[in-house]
Amino acid sequence: MSKYVVGVDVGGTTVKIGIFTAEGEVVEKWEIPTRKEDSGSNILPDISDSIKKKIVSNDINADDVLGVGIGVPGPVDDDGVVHKAVNLGWGKFNLVDAMKPLMPGVLVKGGNDANVAALGEMWKGGGQGHDNIVAVTLGTGVGGGIIINGRLLNGSTGAGGEIGHLHVEDNETEACGCGNYGCLEEYTSATGIVRLARRALDATAAPSCLRDTELTAKAVFDAVKDGDAIAIQVAEKFGDYLGKGLSLIAGVVNPEVFVIGGGVSKAGEILFDYIRPSYEANVFHGSKDAILALATLGNDAGIYGAAKLILSECE
Amino acid sequence: MSKYVVGVDVGGTTVKIGIFTAEGEVVEKWEIPTRKEDSGSNILPDISDSIKKKIVSNDINADDVLGVGIGVPGPVDDDGVVHKAVNLGWGKFNLVDAMKPLMPGVLVKGGNDANVAALGEMWKGGGQGHDNIVAVTLGTGVGGGIIINGRLLNGSTGAGGEIGHLHVEDNETEACGCGNYGCLEEYTSATGIVRLARRALDATAAPSCLRDTELTAKAVFDAVKDGDAIAIQVAEKFGDYLGKGLSLIAGVVNPEVFVIGGGVSKAGEILFDYIRPSYEANVFHGSKDAILALATLGNDAGIYGAAKLILSECE
Repeated sequence: MSKYVVGVDVGGTTVKIGIFTAEGEVVEKWEIPTRKEDSGSNILPDISDSIKKKIVSNDINADDVLGVGIGVPGPVDDDGVVHKAVNLGWGKFNLVDAMKPLMPGVLVKGGNDANVAALGEMWKGGGQGHDNIVAVTLGTGVGGGIIINGRLLNGSTGAGGEIGHLHVEDNETEACGCGNYGCLEEYTSATGIVRLARRALDATAAPSCLRDTELTAKAVFDAVKDGDAIAIQVAEKFGDYLGKGLSLIAGVVNPEVFVIGGGVSKAGEILFDYIRPSYEANVFHGSKDAILALATLGNDAGIYGAAKLILSECE
Repeated sequence: MSKYVVGVDVGGTTVKIGIFTAEGEVVEKWEIPTRKEDSGSNILPDISDSIKKKIVSNDINADDVLGVGIGVPGPVDDDGVVHKAVNLGWGKFNLVDAMKPLMPGVLVKGGNDANVAALGEMWKGGGQGHDNIVAVTLGTGVGGGIIINGRLLNGSTGAGGEIGHLHVEDNETEACGCGNYGCLEEYTSATGIVRLARRALDATAAPSCLRDTELTAKAVFDAVKDGDAIAIQVAEKFGDYLGKGLSLIAGVVNPEVFVIGGGVSKAGEILFDYIRPSYEANVFHGSKDAILALATLGNDAGIYGAAKLILSECE
């Protein structure tokens, strides 16, 4: 008889939910709106109602559901305590305890969304076959998820894997969103790449196709592929910083593989050409052979990983 | 009836061994020479012979010995495979398998000596009461041991916690022993502090009591305590680099406490005055409150930690 797990990825606009077999096949995936009013107090009831209906409509016996994993946009510790999720209107509370009356008898686990997405990529994405991985999300910001021996590293206050704020530049004069100066995110997020490009364009009068387009990370890497000299210079700076950042992470946790995701990763494996030289120049030799891989699950990484939270618990 | 564990710390000159109660009381601790000839093939038989004799002389029933933990100066993975231990003449082999015929029926676990020492400091030293700690050893080099939820993070190739080689300076012209440039160890080991002092003295003609003494890390911190301006400048540089290095580690694993040991740590808590400002300036806010503590077990951290390897396994 089949067993099932449910993965939930709570975002600021929509909640993604998936029912999976224990082997990781999608039974059904869907979305519901995130109702943030009233301090987000409807969000968990909406989720449990929606899951219950779909369990029925898919003819699944409720006893065959191993549990519900939930990824949250904020720090979540090993006990399931959400420390804050500003985007949802949530303060500090225990997610597992809050779900208990809504889904009696069902195992519930919570995790930070970036960490949970890392677990998804390990299970069914770019990190498949490995159990020591670091997932790096290059989006508007830079997030990370660290998995050691198949388990998420949440950190003592839920701030494990906050790699976007690793200090990689001593001479930065613009502050990062976090208040510090010279954070990895300032150079390697989509926004950071645009900033690097703007600085490069301002520093010279040399021609570049980037002068005639809206500056985005995609435009920069498209221009790199077309051989634009300034875009290549920007890609090199991006790679210098990210390679250095990954070398620092490797010096601490020595993963087998870095799985690179987020919007910037759509540029593809060409990113690795720019990251690898700086990584190898800075990393301790014991970590030199770490693999660079692209994330493959896109926006579904969160629901896969949330489902895997439950399976890891049942192992 | 009492249960016992044995902790072994294999060094290049001597092997330290301790028999402990399961509660961590020392029954007896002693040393034997490390016989490195013949590719170190006598080392394990010497260890098992010595342990067997001491078990008898302490009137311990062999059945009450829960196991033998062994710390090795080189990378050791989770399966007990030693990847290399140059100082012992050892190549790659499985330590656990090699001990089996020597001590039939006894649980054996192996670990890297710096990592194992971290476990010791967590159990009975400066990290007591915490289970997410990073132990930092400031000796001839800089080593680290990382413990997540009470378990050692060895890394995928045994290079987890190799924090001495985190890149913290872009403008270094002298290579580190590892071949890279600007490693944490180049500024914060005992040797690194001497180098910083030499550079500071060469850069000025200003008087300093450091000009009249043999330059050592101890001399530098003694001069700091006497108010020597150049020594203070050296301590500030040391603190800038170490604070930055610890902030990078915190950005990855978010520990509750950093336990600082090794020869340099004998300077005492004055070190923290120099480390803390740079740590706080560079670290992500979620890790700002991490505790700085001094290691307390000294050279015994290794045998305590090796014993704890066994107890962690039995939990």
